Formats: sequence, structure tokens, C-alpha cells
Amino acid sequence: MTLRHLFYPRNVALVGSVAEGKVGFELLRQMLRGGYRDAYVVNPKAQGALDVPSYATIGAIPAPVDLVVISSPAATVAGILEECGQVGVKAAVIISSGFSEMGNKAGEAEIKAIAERHGIRIIGPNCAGIINTSHRLCPTMETLPPPGPVALISQSGALAGVVLGWAARDGLGISKFVSYGNRSDINEVDLLEYLANDEETHVVGLYIETVSDGRTFMAAAAKCAARKPVIVIKAGRGESGQRATLSHTGSLAGSDAVYDAALHQCGAIRVESAEEMFDLCRGFVGIPQGIRGRRIAIVTNSGGPSILAADRAEVVGLEVAEPGPAIRAKLASFLPSHATSW
Amino acid sequence: MTLRHLFYPRNVALVGSVAEGKVGFELLRQMLRGGYRDAYVVNPKAQGALDVPSYATIGAIPAPVDLVVISSPAATVAGILEECGQVGVKAAVIISSGFSEMGNKAGEAEIKAIAERHGIRIIGPNCAGIINTSHRLCPTMETLPPPGPVALISQSGALAGVVLGWAARDGLGISKFVSYGNRSDINEVDLLEYLANDEETHVVGLYIETVSDGRTFMAAAAKCAARKPVIVIKAGRGESGQRATLSHTGSLAGSDAVYDAALHQCGAIRVESAEEMFDLCRGFVGIPQGIRGRRIAIVTNSGGPSILAADRAEVVGLEVAEPGPAIRAKLASFLPSHATSW
Repeated sequence: MTLRHLFYPRNVALVGSVAEGKVGFELLRQMLRGGYRDAYVVNPKAQGALDVPSYATIGAIPAPVDLVVISSPAATVAGILEECGQVGVKAAVIISSGFSEMGNKAGEAEIKAIAERHGIRIIGPNCAGIINTSHRLCPTMETLPPPGPVALISQSGALAGVVLGWAARDGLGISKFVSYGNRSDINEVDLLEYLANDEETHVVGLYIETVSDGRTFMAAAAKCAARKPVIVIKAGRGESGQRATLSHTGSLAGSDAVYDAALHQCGAIRVESAEEMFDLCRGFVGIPQGIRGRRIAIVTNSGGPSILAADRAEVVGLEVAEPGPAIRAKLASFLPSHATSW
Repeated sequence: MTLRHLFYPRNVALVGSVAEGKVGFELLRQMLRGGYRDAYVVNPKAQGALDVPSYATIGAIPAPVDLVVISSPAATVAGILEECGQVGVKAAVIISSGFSEMGNKAGEAEIKAIAERHGIRIIGPNCAGIINTSHRLCPTMETLPPPGPVALISQSGALAGVVLGWAARDGLGISKFVSYGNRSDINEVDLLEYLANDEETHVVGLYIETVSDGRTFMAAAAKCAARKPVIVIKAGRGESGQRATLSHTGSLAGSDAVYDAALHQCGAIRVESAEEMFDLCRGFVGIPQGIRGRRIAIVTNSGGPSILAADRAEVVGLEVAEPGPAIRAKLASFLPSHATSW
């Protein structure tokens, strides 16, 4: 299975209203802001915006369409997917909500069945879109980050959106972003398998509330983590969090201790917050490959932060090395004496 | 003991070079930027800057001086304090470094003795200055924050400086800031006792590497924490951190487990990082007085962050309450149906 049509489509049709204030309008504006040009708009009135050509049906578009991005109401999505199937669309990102996350399991099963019948791969529904910076593809309302080596995969669009916002602010480069929402088709396993082989991605950040299948997830996570750092937030630790998960993406969160052990065994790094996710992604981007050993040095312009760093180093099993005479002599040759107490 | 002359001086003499690029110049510029007008400059050449009157000696200043701020080299500080004593200066903030933090214990003992003999109270040496926003007093090179209810007291200027930077960025109001450095005279106990009674301060953030005396510290912390939240970073947990502490402010950090228990017993809240310090200060500023009970509600525009919040709530012993029928009905009356799954 390849996700090539999802990440590198030759063209994209945005299906839904693009009236100002509508989600479709914002998606279109983002796409253009990101530099993607091969876009079409589809809605019953063929109402366009921002000089993008518009059509009443997907079939009316004069070129074969690779990817559709759907933001129209939930009740219209099944019909749109049928239409997609008839004209050979390869993949769909369904932004629209109103499916299993609010109890509408039948509606979600219906769109899944239609997509399977036509061989259309789906992201979503109830998701915040995708980004592939190398293809200038960004049908999402989240902040557009600069291109770079970090992939972010998230069951929660808002959580990853926060990280994307910081990435844009601090210049952390992103390769791919996927908010996969209700995960009716493409899931965290598919994405980990894809990213393990994606040469544009050197670090993977993953936010999960649940996994579809524990064994396949572990195999995919282990394979990916063997090639590049995989940093994971697993939400829904406790009873309240699990209740919140159910109403968020309609899934059950599972035993936390099992996840803890499984992630550790896979070689993934579990973190607790969006801040830690961002910090670790940024850290790994800056670290040269192949560093070994546990001895570290801390370089600082002030004592306080270096003491906190030394404290933390000890907690995580690193040793703050005392510099040897040669290094001391070298440092003393160009640092003022008050900067070189050991 | 009152610190009134320190925080509410009628005038301030900056002692040291105010040539551009010198610390004294930056201190002076900050003072003026903060709106403090009753400043003088003192250095041997009576070289002034920024239209502030300058003198060759403190005695030449035509008014009695309350507070001096010293940024001249360590070797000159003893002489300056002698001069201060002769003209009745009440308090000194010694920015200059080069004392016990680099092994010069004799130098520090000397200035301490001179100050005691003349009844001059000292902050520092080797500190980053002070702020009292209500008095527009800000002899420090750290970022100037807006006025407000949070006091920051720190053995590390840089650590508190980071928090001040965030406070300025996010509009968190600061009442007083003290970087007390080597703590030759005024220490964390004096400051906690003062802040317990300071009506301008509703929340106290404290960064310590060491305390002068465990019992008096505990008494002061408990008294302050009984009146307002006291949030504490205690650095120097492990062996490496303790080594770093020794070369930072010349003191020994003590057993971490003892600090943990003692801070808990005092009613202080121990945190691990500048980020947590800032977040808790900001949180306490926003919380109405007198909230009771363990049941909380989480209001969110997205599932992911709310699940992480619910997870965390459970870890810290809070209960995420399920809304009763009356609240559900009321929320349903103005929220769209997909926003009100429970």
C-alpha cells in the first residue's frame, strides 16, 4: 500500500462551500498561501473563490482528480464519495465531522464501505487535514510550518496544531502532517509504515488516543523507531481521560500500563505533553547521527539553568562529565577566569 | 527589619562606569525606560550618560541617598561601601561579581563586615538586580515586566530573567523581583518574611539552590504560604547539580529528599522548571480566592488537549465531574449538538 496519491497528488478538488467564513474557504486560502496551484473547487452552485476554477460536480473537472478534500456537511459525504469513485479519485481527506465521534457509527460505516468498494483511501472523517511541505500541499486550517525533517501524525488536530504553531514560530521544519481523526481507513499503522520509508522524514511525532490493533501497531512502531526517533503522546491514561477519548474520536483508550510497556519495548519515546513533543522533535533534529555514551557537557551563560539541566541529566541517567586538564587549559586560554570555575 | 529603603528608595545612585557597552549604562537605560527619575551616576571621572546627573563621589550628591546600585569591579566595592556608610546610604544592590562564587570568600566577608558596621542592607553581590514595579524601580538588565501581583525571588538571575521575559510577553504582572545572588546579607528568609506582608504581592515564585538556615527558612516559607501561594524551584538535586551549584553561588545544595519533605510541610508547591513556575504563577493569578473541593470541569474547543488535561487531573487527585442533567440541558440550549457529547 502506498500513500503516494495522498501526499503527492497531481491535483486536488476541494468539495464544499467556499463562501467566506466557511471551512472550505479557509482550506482554499491555506492551499494557495502554501503555494499549491493545481486546485479545483466543487459545490452544487459551482461557486468559486480566490480565482480557483469551480465546478458543480467532480465529474465536470476536465482532468482526472487524484485527491479530494471534503468539508461539506456529514450527510453529503457518502454521495460525494460515490461520485469520486465513478471518476477514479484515489484518496479523500474528510474534514467534515458528525460521524462516530458523536455516535453516528452507521454514517461512518457507510462512507467506509463506499470508499473500499471504489478503492479510495480515506483520511478522517472529523480531522484537521494534512500537509506535505515538499509538495506544497496543505489542505488544513492549522498553522503552516516551514519544510524540514519532522513528521507529525495526530489523532487530535488541535494538539498537533499547537506543535505546528510553535514549529512556524521557531523555525522547526516539518515534512508531513496528518490529522487522522476518526481513522475510518488510513490509521497510525499505515502512517508509521509509510514514514519509516519516507526519506524526507528523520523524526516522527505521534499523538494517539487509541490504536486499532495492538500487535500491528507495535510492529510498525518498532520498525519505524529502528530507523528514526519516534516520539509518542499516548493520551487517555485515566478514567476521565478515557471518557473524554470516547466522545472525541469514538474509541476506547485501553490500559495505560500496557501502552507504557509496549511503547518502551518498541523503542519509542513516550512524552506527556505537546511541549515535550516539540522540544524532543527539535532536539533530535539538531543531534548528529551516531552519538554514543552517557557523558555530557553543559554549556551555559548562567548558573541556574545549568543546575536544572544537571539535575535532569542525572534523573535520566546521563553523567555530567568533569572536564579533564587539557580541556580546562584550552577553555582557560580564551574564557575570563570567573567563567571557568569547575 | 524592613526592606523599605530597598524597594521604595527616594533616590538611587548607580556606581560604576556608564560608558556605552558597560553594565552600568544598561542599568541606567533600564531605570529610565522603567520610568524612574530620581537617579544619579557616580564614578571617578563623574562621567554621566542619558542626561542623568553625575558625580565623582557619593558624598558629592546634593541629596541624602537611599539606595546605591554597584556595577564597578569587585576590588572597588569595599571602598564604595565605606563611602556609602559615611553618607548614610541605607541599602546597596551589588551587581558586581568576583566574590565567593569564584572562591573569593575573603572579599565577600570584607564587604559584608563593612555593610554591617554601617547598617547598610545588601542584595548580592553577583546578582542581576531588583524590580519594584509599583515604585517604577528597575535596576536590572532583565526584561521589564508589567505591574501585577506576582513576586519573583531568585538565587539565579538568568532563571528568573526567563520568567520575566515570558511575563512581559504574555502580560503576567509582577510586583517585585529580586535576584539575590551570593546572598551576603539579605536572603530568601528576609524576602519571604517581607513578601508575606506585602499587599502588592499575591503569589510568590522562588528559585533556590540552597538555604542559609533550614529552620528559619521553613518558618518563613510556612508563614508566607499560609497567606499566598508560594511556588518553589529547588535546584541542585543530584551530585552533578550540587557541583554546579557550588561554582554558581558558592553554596552547598543539601539533601534533596529533605527539601522535598520540608517544602511540602510548609505548604509550598515545588516545581521542576521555569516553565512550570511561570504557568503556576499565571494560574494562581487567575484563580478566585477560596475555591474548594476536588471536582473540576474542562472547557475546550478540541478533544486532544482536554484528554491530556483529564489525564493530568487524575494524576494530581482531581475529579473531572460529569455534568448533571440541568447543566447538560442548559449547555444544549446554546451549543450545537455535536459539541455536547459527554
